[in-house]
Amino acid sequence: MSAPADGFGVDHLPYGVFSVAGGPRRVGVRLGDGVLDLAALTDRPEFAAASLNPFLALGREVWHETREQVRALAGSDAATVSLADVVLHLPFEVADYVDFYASEHHASNVGRLFRPGQEPLLPNWKHLPVGYHGRAGTVVPSGTDVVRPSGQRGAGDVGPSRRLDIEAELGFVVGTPSPLGDPVPAGALADHVFGVVGLNDWSARDLQAWEYVPLGPFLGKSFATSISHWVTPLEALDAAWCDLPGQTDPRPPDYLDPDHARGLDLAVEVEVNGEVVARPPYASMYWGPAQMLAHLTVNGASVRTGDLFASGTISGPEPDQVGSLLELHRGERFLDDGDTVVLRYSAPGVDGGRLTLGEVAGTVLPARG
Amino acid sequence: MSAPADGFGVDHLPYGVFSVAGGPRRVGVRLGDGVLDLAALTDRPEFAAASLNPFLALGREVWHETREQVRALAGSDAATVSLADVVLHLPFEVADYVDFYASEHHASNVGRLFRPGQEPLLPNWKHLPVGYHGRAGTVVPSGTDVVRPSGQRGAGDVGPSRRLDIEAELGFVVGTPSPLGDPVPAGALADHVFGVVGLNDWSARDLQAWEYVPLGPFLGKSFATSISHWVTPLEALDAAWCDLPGQTDPRPPDYLDPDHARGLDLAVEVEVNGEVVARPPYASMYWGPAQMLAHLTVNGASVRTGDLFASGTISGPEPDQVGSLLELHRGERFLDDGDTVVLRYSAPGVDGGRLTLGEVAGTVLPARG
Repeated sequence: MSAPADGFGVDHLPYGVFSVAGGPRRVGVRLGDGVLDLAALTDRPEFAAASLNPFLALGREVWHETREQVRALAGSDAATVSLADVVLHLPFEVADYVDFYASEHHASNVGRLFRPGQEPLLPNWKHLPVGYHGRAGTVVPSGTDVVRPSGQRGAGDVGPSRRLDIEAELGFVVGTPSPLGDPVPAGALADHVFGVVGLNDWSARDLQAWEYVPLGPFLGKSFATSISHWVTPLEALDAAWCDLPGQTDPRPPDYLDPDHARGLDLAVEVEVNGEVVARPPYASMYWGPAQMLAHLTVNGASVRTGDLFASGTISGPEPDQVGSLLELHRGERFLDDGDTVVLRYSAPGVDGGRLTLGEVAGTVLPARG
Repeated sequence: MSAPADGFGVDHLPYGVFSVAGGPRRVGVRLGDGVLDLAALTDRPEFAAASLNPFLALGREVWHETREQVRALAGSDAATVSLADVVLHLPFEVADYVDFYASEHHASNVGRLFRPGQEPLLPNWKHLPVGYHGRAGTVVPSGTDVVRPSGQRGAGDVGPSRRLDIEAELGFVVGTPSPLGDPVPAGALADHVFGVVGLNDWSARDLQAWEYVPLGPFLGKSFATSISHWVTPLEALDAAWCDLPGQTDPRPPDYLDPDHARGLDLAVEVEVNGEVVARPPYASMYWGPAQMLAHLTVNGASVRTGDLFASGTISGPEPDQVGSLLELHRGERFLDDGDTVVLRYSAPGVDGGRLTLGEVAGTVLPARG
């Protein structure tokens, strides 16, 4: 079998959960337009599961051995199930979901819009990767429709959100847990994080603006967060690492390891109703994923298998590089009912080729009731 | 068997998870100084489980039938396992954890300390129950030691928290899930919420003050949240409901049902190193639990079995009725290594007696590393 040229070749091999004709869910790996059924092709019981979590819990060595095994399968004549015949599901059970705010351009753009007349970047922003907890129970797989949320748009004003937005982000999926009380060093990212997903952090800006002081976003975000069906292993992203834009003024504390922290050179496309409206460059992100994980645990918080932490909106310096409509249209236009948003991601592959990461699609349904 | 007079009689019957001599975990109900082993005494397979979640998922009718069955057992000569012989565990697997901020006195006290010179209560506070998501994976059972968290105490200042605090709260445990997209009406609290736990939301005030603008508390809270071993069913609290202090200026929107919302007349004691330092009255809380659940889901967010939402710090109007040391000592004294905090809760019972809810204990260990 020759390597498919669509970004899903033997250099990629992302994991997901699928079923065929109402049969049980099991773990598969995407290869071209097909899915390798790992429950059938290997003897690991963890693949006959409705989520990736049992496999994720096995740890880095098993992830690597399995990747070698799957590469061999992919290079052989092992049969794949056609993508057209499968239903794809949420790839893993989300334990805790944390959302960071790691793009300097996004944080500055939003600061200008939400706090006009004030310094756009807050005093803490370059000292630590600002983050907060989101709702794990409303993380949904790509393709799930999103009902327009209702809530308080201001004092005494209840109704459907009029400012429904997207946030194009990258999500990091934790496999190996850490014990309560022990921080995870910045150098240990690949010991804990299995891979990445595309992520759309749907946001109701009117609900968010009214509620978020002082305890942060809540209902403005908690109605839905979409992730891709496919989890790309960190191991497939070896060629994608790049330098961060730079962290010297101020230099962050040692536990964030600013001298070694790196970023990812992923390309993102934001497509609304079939038209690409923005191309955010992930390489422009200020904070790296290893720094996010080190910060998340510096207080002794543990991580669990299935934890998901996301980058925050990916926005580059140019007007057509932003990851939200708030920024793209300066707060003047948001999503209409029936709009379909697709986020697409790609990364450099090992031999000058490109990997196509899992896309994240969703259509807005009218508010209920 | 006569009803024990210690607040754990047949009118109470809280649920927990226990094991004996290294044996498997299973569900039990506390009666006096003993535990009724429901895995042995009933034929429900959901009780031979390491968490209450399978039982919680069965729903309100089964909760009620089971309570009747357990009352009959408690009144018979069914053998109990002595409390002295059991190990108690985390009673349920926490799905999502949400923390509210429902005490007007607490919000005002904290506003004065965190934002001196400004209006203590923010403009949104009386329109909606302000809340945010916390970390589910670091919810621990009473008795778990708490390692003093480290982190950024300010710009360039990393080290162990110098302002480690408690927050005495009440937690509400969701049994019956709700579908994504459909709000839970305020009248449906008892259809979804199985019961309550005592809860200590440990807080590092220096980490929190530096990080919390604009996305809310994160590492200042995420290192540990302690809950009681025992979950008191809502059915046991029939005599504890009371009027809320009043919501007329402004009147909250209809979905928060201010005309019918009620509070709970629970008494709380905050004990530090054996001395009671405060007695927060839960009846002084501004927002009721049904309002919290209605607000949490008004945007269509679903709830899951095992969701935990907490009241926020319980503080009454008097200086000795506050639920945090920040308020008690005006920001001038916090927890030392070795300090032990115990939160105790009691509620009116059906016949003029009192129920003793599960206590929440924890001792501060020195920072690591």
